[in-house]
Amino acid sequence: MEVITEINEMRARVLSAKDRKRSIGLVPTMGVLHDGHISLIRSARKENDEVVVSIYLNPTQFDNNDDFDKYPRQLNKDIDVIRKENADVVFAPCTEEMYPEGFCTNVTDDRLSDTMCGRVRPGHFNGVSTIVTKLFNIIQPDLAYFGQKDYQQSAIIKRLVTDMNMEIDIRVCPTVREEDGLALSSRNGRLSPEERQDALCIHGSLLKAREMFASNIRDAKEIIGEMTSVIKDAEYTKIDYISIVNADTLEDLSLINGKALAAVAVWIGNTRLIDNTILE
Amino acid sequence: MEVITEINEMRARVLSAKDRKRSIGLVPTMGVLHDGHISLIRSARKENDEVVVSIYLNPTQFDNNDDFDKYPRQLNKDIDVIRKENADVVFAPCTEEMYPEGFCTNVTDDRLSDTMCGRVRPGHFNGVSTIVTKLFNIIQPDLAYFGQKDYQQSAIIKRLVTDMNMEIDIRVCPTVREEDGLALSSRNGRLSPEERQDALCIHGSLLKAREMFASNIRDAKEIIGEMTSVIKDAEYTKIDYISIVNADTLEDLSLINGKALAAVAVWIGNTRLIDNTILE
Repeated sequence: MEVITEINEMRARVLSAKDRKRSIGLVPTMGVLHDGHISLIRSARKENDEVVVSIYLNPTQFDNNDDFDKYPRQLNKDIDVIRKENADVVFAPCTEEMYPEGFCTNVTDDRLSDTMCGRVRPGHFNGVSTIVTKLFNIIQPDLAYFGQKDYQQSAIIKRLVTDMNMEIDIRVCPTVREEDGLALSSRNGRLSPEERQDALCIHGSLLKAREMFASNIRDAKEIIGEMTSVIKDAEYTKIDYISIVNADTLEDLSLINGKALAAVAVWIGNTRLIDNTILE
Repeated sequence: MEVITEINEMRARVLSAKDRKRSIGLVPTMGVLHDGHISLIRSARKENDEVVVSIYLNPTQFDNNDDFDKYPRQLNKDIDVIRKENADVVFAPCTEEMYPEGFCTNVTDDRLSDTMCGRVRPGHFNGVSTIVTKLFNIIQPDLAYFGQKDYQQSAIIKRLVTDMNMEIDIRVCPTVREEDGLALSSRNGRLSPEERQDALCIHGSLLKAREMFASNIRDAKEIIGEMTSVIKDAEYTKIDYISIVNADTLEDLSLINGKALAAVAVWIGNTRLIDNTILE
């Protein structure tokens, strides 16, 4: 497995793969890989000739410096993990190359980011769209893999690829969970044991939404009310948002009448966690 | 020569060219081709195996509907002109395909568009950046050609290509002028005979700037003052801006101490014209 840190070297490797008609699968990550990332790498391994895993902690998608500073980093450990999964390349560029002096172009989403995480994290999704566009242009993947936990991100990237006429298929893979239901996240490591216990309310609220939906309840307000109760029952929680939206347009729903998404963001102490489930 | 109106067909043609290792030169236009465009096509013809000329009147880069409505259109005549220049493909997509329902991604410039035309035409350069990104992704040119008359546009696109890690060389070709100095523009056709005469003041103001620069005058305010007088001497003119800026960063200069650009935008009656010259 190659570890590439320079854009030109990555590009040469891509050109060589393209010349040999080898398909490329990309798993973009910010490092601190967990089983969720590994499931993406395994999916990529099954479907592509070459698998590239990028590791880049993109500063422009953090809406506060504290979160960026606290975000964990473990490059060498990540490289070992990726090697075991038989990826072909780890691409780990530096910020000096990704955002050189004078950088001033950004890719923006003007609709799908108006809700949910976009509403409470200004600039976050533009940071994501910009870095993903750059990675796509450097690596030119045929397929790119994202996790359903970041549902809004996947929706924005799917739209970006369509709108910008990129020939890339976006694969959204199921959220990987701990046995007790907590969605894997690089931020989970920040939780104290008590917070870790409280964090279960997130998945609990989604199970409640599914249960109500299964009982033919379609009133979003009613479902959100019950989800709110589940989360408020936990001690160290503060709700950032609970949304029920159209799964394609991400528009808030009052009545569920098609494929919908129930999504939550909750502060557990000082750590913000998100999760979601499809209702259909 | 092929005339292609569908994105998928254009893409297939591009893939076939890439497979045969044929280089692609792109000349993006909004139609109503004049000798300025033709000089771009000829440059492209010299440097590339395949020459694609796109014709698309991009609605999102017009900051007012009146200008968009008044902008001339003559597709069949343009196709004849391009055929005579031995281009390989005219790509003339429709708006339904370029901006399908739900379109919500844009490419923005956050610095170079803060000045000159960007200051007086809000949204214009984001419209340009977005459509150019789309055309670049569809046509995947090795080289793309722009005219120096739209200097700020070229600067923004060069930055876009660097920032977004696109492997495309941007060629900026000299402004083509009428014998009396007026820069060719698709908007010139709107001028009455009197306005056409008055429009000469634009080039006149640039000659004045060059003359002062040649006499070792480096004070931007002094040069702008004289340029203003030249333009105000003409009857039907209203100055939109006269700027002297760093030719790379487009930042306003008070003292010229490196490669600079003198740029003007002037309303001649109801028609807004732009022009510029390098001072070095």
